[in-house]
Amino acid sequence: MAISPALIKEFSAVVGSTNVLTEEADRQAYSYDAAVLSPVIPALVVSPETQEQLGQVVKLAYVADLPITVRGAGTNLSGAVIPEPGDGLVILTNKLNKILEINAEDLYAVVEPGLITATFATEVAKMGLFYPPDPGSQSVSTLGGNIALNAGGLRGLKYGVTKDYIMGMEIFDYRGELIKSGSRTVKYVTGYNMPALMAASEGTLGIFSNIIIKLVPPPKAQKAMMAIFGDVNKASETVAGIISAHIVPCTLEFLDQKCIRYVEADAKIGLPVEAGAILLIEVDGGHAQMVEEDAQKVMEICKKCGSTDIRVARNEKEKNDIWAARRNALPVLARARPTTVLEDATVPRSRIPEMVAAVNRIAEKFKLEVGIFGHAGDGNLHPTILCDRRNSEEFHRVEQAVDEIFDVALKLQGTLSGEHGIGMAKAKWMEKETNRATIEFAKSIRRALDPKMLFNAGKKFV
Amino acid sequence: MAISPALIKEFSAVVGSTNVLTEEADRQAYSYDAAVLSPVIPALVVSPETQEQLGQVVKLAYVADLPITVRGAGTNLSGAVIPEPGDGLVILTNKLNKILEINAEDLYAVVEPGLITATFATEVAKMGLFYPPDPGSQSVSTLGGNIALNAGGLRGLKYGVTKDYIMGMEIFDYRGELIKSGSRTVKYVTGYNMPALMAASEGTLGIFSNIIIKLVPPPKAQKAMMAIFGDVNKASETVAGIISAHIVPCTLEFLDQKCIRYVEADAKIGLPVEAGAILLIEVDGGHAQMVEEDAQKVMEICKKCGSTDIRVARNEKEKNDIWAARRNALPVLARARPTTVLEDATVPRSRIPEMVAAVNRIAEKFKLEVGIFGHAGDGNLHPTILCDRRNSEEFHRVEQAVDEIFDVALKLQGTLSGEHGIGMAKAKWMEKETNRATIEFAKSIRRALDPKMLFNAGKKFV
Repeated sequence: MAISPALIKEFSAVVGSTNVLTEEADRQAYSYDAAVLSPVIPALVVSPETQEQLGQVVKLAYVADLPITVRGAGTNLSGAVIPEPGDGLVILTNKLNKILEINAEDLYAVVEPGLITATFATEVAKMGLFYPPDPGSQSVSTLGGNIALNAGGLRGLKYGVTKDYIMGMEIFDYRGELIKSGSRTVKYVTGYNMPALMAASEGTLGIFSNIIIKLVPPPKAQKAMMAIFGDVNKASETVAGIISAHIVPCTLEFLDQKCIRYVEADAKIGLPVEAGAILLIEVDGGHAQMVEEDAQKVMEICKKCGSTDIRVARNEKEKNDIWAARRNALPVLARARPTTVLEDATVPRSRIPEMVAAVNRIAEKFKLEVGIFGHAGDGNLHPTILCDRRNSEEFHRVEQAVDEIFDVALKLQGTLSGEHGIGMAKAKWMEKETNRATIEFAKSIRRALDPKMLFNAGKKFV
Repeated sequence: MAISPALIKEFSAVVGSTNVLTEEADRQAYSYDAAVLSPVIPALVVSPETQEQLGQVVKLAYVADLPITVRGAGTNLSGAVIPEPGDGLVILTNKLNKILEINAEDLYAVVEPGLITATFATEVAKMGLFYPPDPGSQSVSTLGGNIALNAGGLRGLKYGVTKDYIMGMEIFDYRGELIKSGSRTVKYVTGYNMPALMAASEGTLGIFSNIIIKLVPPPKAQKAMMAIFGDVNKASETVAGIISAHIVPCTLEFLDQKCIRYVEADAKIGLPVEAGAILLIEVDGGHAQMVEEDAQKVMEICKKCGSTDIRVARNEKEKNDIWAARRNALPVLARARPTTVLEDATVPRSRIPEMVAAVNRIAEKFKLEVGIFGHAGDGNLHPTILCDRRNSEEFHRVEQAVDEIFDVALKLQGTLSGEHGIGMAKAKWMEKETNRATIEFAKSIRRALDPKMLFNAGKKFV
């Protein structure tokens, strides 16, 4: 299907012709995201430079019945920004990247949705403030995208995730009307809790125009360490032990032997390749002595639970080495085979030992190579299946394995997705976790806020 | 209007006849809440004892087109549980008060909506855990009511408010179908963020059946103090000073001279009646020395900002005396005149000095007696107008003053209501803070989730 030259002219009149991409070669770049799914080339790509232009683009698309997919950096892992086939319009937010206000007295900032998360974190840090959410994609992903997917990250355990930092938003509705929600105040009950509803809405309820983001004072001290375990179960039991002791580390990450070996083979940072698993732990807080004591307690718990060795970072370099192990896990695994299926089924953290055991059992059953790493403190592991999508027999086994992983997560009172989103990848499993009435309840909100169903059709709820 | 005896029999068959109140004398008790508004006697009051009964009651009401108002303890200050005139049905939740699970390893609890907040807090404390939200009504108000109004409290500054502790909910929709939302996991993006949407929804979107509540480890040390200021402006500037210094007290409360004098006349606890204002401050945390140092810094800031005297609680009794001053403020003011109009317009905390000055100017302009106390650290003050509603000339001045207070709050980038809710009391002002499109956006969600508009009609959005 084609969009008429007259309509393209109208979009050009709003955003300028350089911000309208019509050539297939240009549009192709916006046909996929980080999910293992088939690309769909959008009919048109527009890139508004101001919030006002954004509203006008939405209005034009509404009148012309164009399906809209808003795209930040396209780093999501669930197909949440794959365009609609036919006359799908992609709206890029990357030129809507201004910081409009940072208020150090009242601990908030107002930003545009295309601002890159790490850029924002750096800017607020310069003012002595802290924006904690740190999704793995933070150096390229955008705050608007983080909100749409409710991005998690390594610091979720102590500091929460993206949704915990949205104080307010201005949103364009399906007709391009501006909706105001939330406030610059920390308490607010004046409307429905719309800013929170937008978290994890995956572009289906409204188009974010600007965002009021909560900031916090930064921690004054940190201490990072790596605890090594011969047995994977002992590592996962340690996680439960730390939380039960009422210590809340800012990060508590897990790597199994497969991940350790892949990372070490690639990065050569001295990881213990004979270990069954390692935990990477960082404690932080507002007082050096407290952090020191918490670190001591964590070490005692690790030893009690069977850690064979604990390496504490003595300086910034050693700390960076510890985190390099974690940061490298996904890229290294991703290079091992042509296709990487990265899951994020999540369980209550005390069920981690059962979840790890189940994933390994499933890997064996379907003869698949699966590495497990992730946010153990949140119960949010990432079983990572190394495969080749072109091998349809193998990929069928992958799909069966994923199905079983979901079944186990739900049996353990967990959820299909902790932070990667539903998008196109998991929509079909939604009913398994909830029920038909729940899906209809959600869809009725969606229909109410988008009667023509132009916002990211085919995602989240089907 | 009357409800037919046949229908009453049907309700009795579901909940038992002792749980169906038909006598006017019984129904009268559910005709009002804590707002200054005219009572409306419901046509029928039913009190389900199980979640299953609750769902069946909703189904019956749906078929019979009965307007439903769900009532916890009726402590809200905005008319959010005043029944619909005519054949309004009140569903009481007070018999749905079970704690279904407290999970100390995974830091959550599952409860029924009629559970009293303080009872819950006490039970989790017995297990060494902490539920921070502490609305003033906590000794009688219910968790379901707290969620419906998104209740705040004294600890909001550091620990957040009710909405920050809702991990999941099961909800009956308008037909009595069970909707599942959220999870026992700390990360969750599987559906829309429904648990958050229910916060501050004031009974208009669904009927809460059970709730998964987040718990945290308790602080290990506290320190409370009272800082006395000759000048009200110096007290409010101190608030901004403390936050700017990156100290986040768990409580940071303000009382002006009028409140101090009323409380002291009544309670005789040695408050400084010549002071312009006092701040009541408590710092807490996971480490005794950190708390000690934070308290020292707070004291230095108070002195620097002009505090004439600081009284630090040396023991539990002195700490209780300090908090008695705050706890008594509202009851004592409420006894001073026949009618108490308690507002909660909220501003970014750095605008507190301007807000206090404006409220005093407005009080003078309209010749009204106004005491100001409240959660200064949240920018959430409670200007409290002492008056007599039966004096229509005076009450007209009260209404004009409230109007101007709202205007000032919005001009200072604040909001109409920080924690008391919109209900019937403030619905007419909603558009002033937002715009028409925003109201319609919200109402379209409401219509989608409650097509017959039976849930708490006339509240929140009109």
